[in-house]
Amino acid sequence: MIRVRKWDGRLQEFDPDKLRRTLMRAGADRELADEVVHRVASMAYDGITTRELLEMALETLRSLERHDAAARYDLKRAIMRLGPTGYPFERYVAKILEAHGYRVLHVGHVFRGKCVDQEVDVALEVEGRRVMVECKFHNSRGIYTDLKPAMYTYARFLDLERYFDEPWLITNTRITEAARRYAQCVGLRVTWWDGPPGASLRELIDAKGLYPVTALQGPEGAIRTLVQAGIVTIDELSRKSERELERLGLPSETAEGLLEVARRISRE
Amino acid sequence: MIRVRKWDGRLQEFDPDKLRRTLMRAGADRELADEVVHRVASMAYDGITTRELLEMALETLRSLERHDAAARYDLKRAIMRLGPTGYPFERYVAKILEAHGYRVLHVGHVFRGKCVDQEVDVALEVEGRRVMVECKFHNSRGIYTDLKPAMYTYARFLDLERYFDEPWLITNTRITEAARRYAQCVGLRVTWWDGPPGASLRELIDAKGLYPVTALQGPEGAIRTLVQAGIVTIDELSRKSERELERLGLPSETAEGLLEVARRISRE
Repeated sequence: MIRVRKWDGRLQEFDPDKLRRTLMRAGADRELADEVVHRVASMAYDGITTRELLEMALETLRSLERHDAAARYDLKRAIMRLGPTGYPFERYVAKILEAHGYRVLHVGHVFRGKCVDQEVDVALEVEGRRVMVECKFHNSRGIYTDLKPAMYTYARFLDLERYFDEPWLITNTRITEAARRYAQCVGLRVTWWDGPPGASLRELIDAKGLYPVTALQGPEGAIRTLVQAGIVTIDELSRKSERELERLGLPSETAEGLLEVARRISRE
Repeated sequence: MIRVRKWDGRLQEFDPDKLRRTLMRAGADRELADEVVHRVASMAYDGITTRELLEMALETLRSLERHDAAARYDLKRAIMRLGPTGYPFERYVAKILEAHGYRVLHVGHVFRGKCVDQEVDVALEVEGRRVMVECKFHNSRGIYTDLKPAMYTYARFLDLERYFDEPWLITNTRITEAARRYAQCVGLRVTWWDGPPGASLRELIDAKGLYPVTALQGPEGAIRTLVQAGIVTIDELSRKSERELERLGLPSETAEGLLEVARRISRE
C-alpha cells in the first residue's frame, strides 16, 4: 500500500481519484490524467510526501505532453498559435469542413458583391447549397466574439446573396449570447469553440483528429515555417516527404523529427 | 532688408512664403503659420543664418501652440486624446451635431431590435427623420475605418428599422474607398475626418468652433477628469463655474486656469 505523508505529518492512503481531479483542474483531459495517474502510481513509494507526489505527477504530465498526447492536449492554445493573422485559421477550418464532407470551393477568394468586392474566407458547397464562411480568429484567451462580427458577416452575405444560399460564422473563441441570438434571428449559422453542443469547433476537430501543426512541440521557427507554407494540420504534414520540408528551409534533422511525430500521431 | 545666410555662406533675401510653407509642412495650419511668420519677421536680423531662423520659427510655433491657437491646431490629435474608450467621442459628436441643428434624442441608448438589443451611439432627429448614428472612434493615427464598421452599422440599422429612417457612420479617422462605396450603395451616410468635402468632421467642428477639452494644454490628470465627467468641449467647460470644477476634484488654481483659457477661446 502506498501512503502519502501530508504537510502536517499525517499519513493518508494514496487516492488516485484525488490526483486525477488535481490534474484535470490543471488542464489535462480525462485520458491524459488517467495516463499520468497510472504512471505515478507505479513510481510512488510508501511514505512519499504530498509535495513529492505532486511534483512527480506534474513532471510526468509535462513529459507526456511533450509527446503524442500534446496534439490532443490544449488544442485551444495550439489553434491560437496559428496566428497572428487569421489566414492559417481559414485554411485550417477549410480542412476540417472538408473532412466532414463539405466541398471546399475557395479559400480567401474575392467575390464581386452588389456593392463592393468582398473577400470570403471559405466558400463551400454541401447538398447543392452554397455556403459563405466567415472565420473569426482571435489569438488570445478570454475573448468573446460579439455582435459586430455576426452583423458584418450577415451584411456581407446580403451583398453576396447572388452567390450564396447561407452565411456561416466560425470562431475559435466563445461567443456572446447576443451574437448567438442575433445569428439565429437572421439565419446566420454559428460555430464557436464549444458550441453548439455536438457540433462545436472542438468536436468537429476531435471527430476527425485533424490537429493543427502548432500542437507539435517542435522548434518554434520550424512550426512557423510550416504554417507559412500553408501546412496547417498534422495530417497534411504527415503526408509530406523529408525533401519537401527541407526545401522549405528546415534542417534535415528537424524535418525528420517532425515527420516522425506527425506520422505517429496520424496513424493513431 | 533682412537677408538670410545659407549653409554655404551665400546671402538670400528672407522669403516669408518659404517659411510659411515649411511651417505648414510641419503641421501648422495657415492661420498659425501666418502668425509665426509675422512674429519671426519682427525678430529676425540681417545676416541671420538659415538654421537660427528655423529655430526661431519653431520656438515661436511651440510658444503659440501652448496658448490659444492650440485649440485649433492639431485638432485630430486632441480628438484622439478623448479615448481610450469611444464614449467621450460619442458625446462630442452629439454636441457637434446639436450645434448644426440636429435634435439629439439619446446618446448611448439601447433599443430593442427585431433580433437583439442594440446600443445606438447617437439617436437624432432632423426634419422629421430619425437618424441612427454609429460613432467609430480610433485613438491612433494612420488607421482607416474599413468595410466592417460600415457593414455592421448597416446590419444594426436593419435590426432597428422600426425606429430609424437612416443610418449614419461618423469616424475620427479616414475611411477606405471600399467602405465609402459600400455605404453609398446601401444608403448609409458616412462622415469621416476629412470628408465628404464641405461636410467633413473637421469642417463640422471648425464651423462651430466646438473644440474638445483635450485640445487644452492643462495638466493631463485634470483634462481626464473633465472628460470622465462628460465635459468634452471647451465651450461646455467655459460655462462651468470654478466651484463645479472643484467639486470634480480639481485644485482651485487648476480650475481657475482652465476656465480662464476656455472662456478666452470661447469668446473668440
